[in-house]
Amino acid sequence: MSTMTNGGRLIGVGVGPGDPDLMTLKAVRALNDADLVAHFARNGSAGNARTIAAAHLRAGTEELALRYPVTTEIAKDCDAYRNAMTAFYDGAAKAIAAHLDAGRTVAVICEGDPLFYGSFMHLHVRLARRYPTEIVAGVTGMSGGWSEAATPIAQGDDVFVVLPATLPAGEFERKLADADAAVIMKIGRNLAKVRTALERTGRLERAIYIERATMGNAVMLPLIEKTDDAAPYFAIVLVPGWEKAL
Amino acid sequence: MSTMTNGGRLIGVGVGPGDPDLMTLKAVRALNDADLVAHFARNGSAGNARTIAAAHLRAGTEELALRYPVTTEIAKDCDAYRNAMTAFYDGAAKAIAAHLDAGRTVAVICEGDPLFYGSFMHLHVRLARRYPTEIVAGVTGMSGGWSEAATPIAQGDDVFVVLPATLPAGEFERKLADADAAVIMKIGRNLAKVRTALERTGRLERAIYIERATMGNAVMLPLIEKTDDAAPYFAIVLVPGWEKAL
Repeated sequence: MSTMTNGGRLIGVGVGPGDPDLMTLKAVRALNDADLVAHFARNGSAGNARTIAAAHLRAGTEELALRYPVTTEIAKDCDAYRNAMTAFYDGAAKAIAAHLDAGRTVAVICEGDPLFYGSFMHLHVRLARRYPTEIVAGVTGMSGGWSEAATPIAQGDDVFVVLPATLPAGEFERKLADADAAVIMKIGRNLAKVRTALERTGRLERAIYIERATMGNAVMLPLIEKTDDAAPYFAIVLVPGWEKAL
Repeated sequence: MSTMTNGGRLIGVGVGPGDPDLMTLKAVRALNDADLVAHFARNGSAGNARTIAAAHLRAGTEELALRYPVTTEIAKDCDAYRNAMTAFYDGAAKAIAAHLDAGRTVAVICEGDPLFYGSFMHLHVRLARRYPTEIVAGVTGMSGGWSEAATPIAQGDDVFVVLPATLPAGEFERKLADADAAVIMKIGRNLAKVRTALERTGRLERAIYIERATMGNAVMLPLIEKTDDAAPYFAIVLVPGWEKAL
């Protein structure tokens, strides 16, 4: 549906947390209308967004995989990592701009919601001022998590916070104590630190550990029942805030 | 699809922020499979969830409107308000339980996501232990807001917070200053307080004011361009956190 003759159209399409049925009608339509469907992925992997959207891609849709550089050998807080990622996003934006300049409609599919902790944001800041851009909101991974766990997360005047487990221990604990409800992201190697902070703030017993919510192979258990500290980077911990039932 | 003979099935169905096309495939299917579709509403109003879902209700679907009591004369922090709301949710749960006991599948449609600041949670805590219960995650109102504003909200190690504007001014300002990104809810009569806190924490210039995101009659403008302090209760203010582009 690239009716624009002067230039293309960029659409950031949220495809939700994992279950393809948690894609929106608007997302399915955007995939159907796109001339090109692009997605981020690591080398050797289809990428979660591509896997989620697979059932809704038209046969013969042209695709573009934007493959992250291999940075496992580089510390994330050093300039070399930053420079590698900047060069990668510059190149990805340039590749997509070439299609937009040819008047095509490019849908970039994104796990969860495009503008909430997503790689799409790096394309957005490089392209949205130069091309007509639309965002299709998606169900976030954390919504998928508390829904699959059937756990009310926040209500009324609750203060809800999303905390990366990568924060220094003291700051992490202080911010956790200052919120009524929380989702802790980027668990990975930080699970021991997370446990300690939950225990010291009186929140360990209501914490729920989740991997791959709504993806069909989800892991979900009270954190106190998890007997080791091994966790993937994308695991999350829910800290439901809602205790004051009406 | 009420194939269970021993009892009914409760489904909390998120219908998203407003645009009916932001409903998920799973939500549409749940409405189609339900014997009864229930929704919350104020007196004299269809209710947002009902309006959003209207196009996807089968002709002849049985419906149940759960009408909030009129509490405009009662202060929200007093026992009378609390008691009125408790009695209302008790009654609503009882009405739905009668249908579940008759072996029916009851879908309760909810604006946004059912377990994120939604009235459904009050039914959930009353019914989920007694009946098979499923949650269909939805796109939240805040995702609809930042997507329609095409504004990246949080990235990387950002701390993201949802703050009710009803908090006392000092606590509100402190928590705002302690986060990288924020969504401020329940603006209503609190806009002057919100402005002051944004100004004092250096965040006023990036704040975006939004009413009715994705509903077709949205209001959306930089907060500094809004010349009055009149705002509905459900208006939100976005404070994008993301400034450190790679």
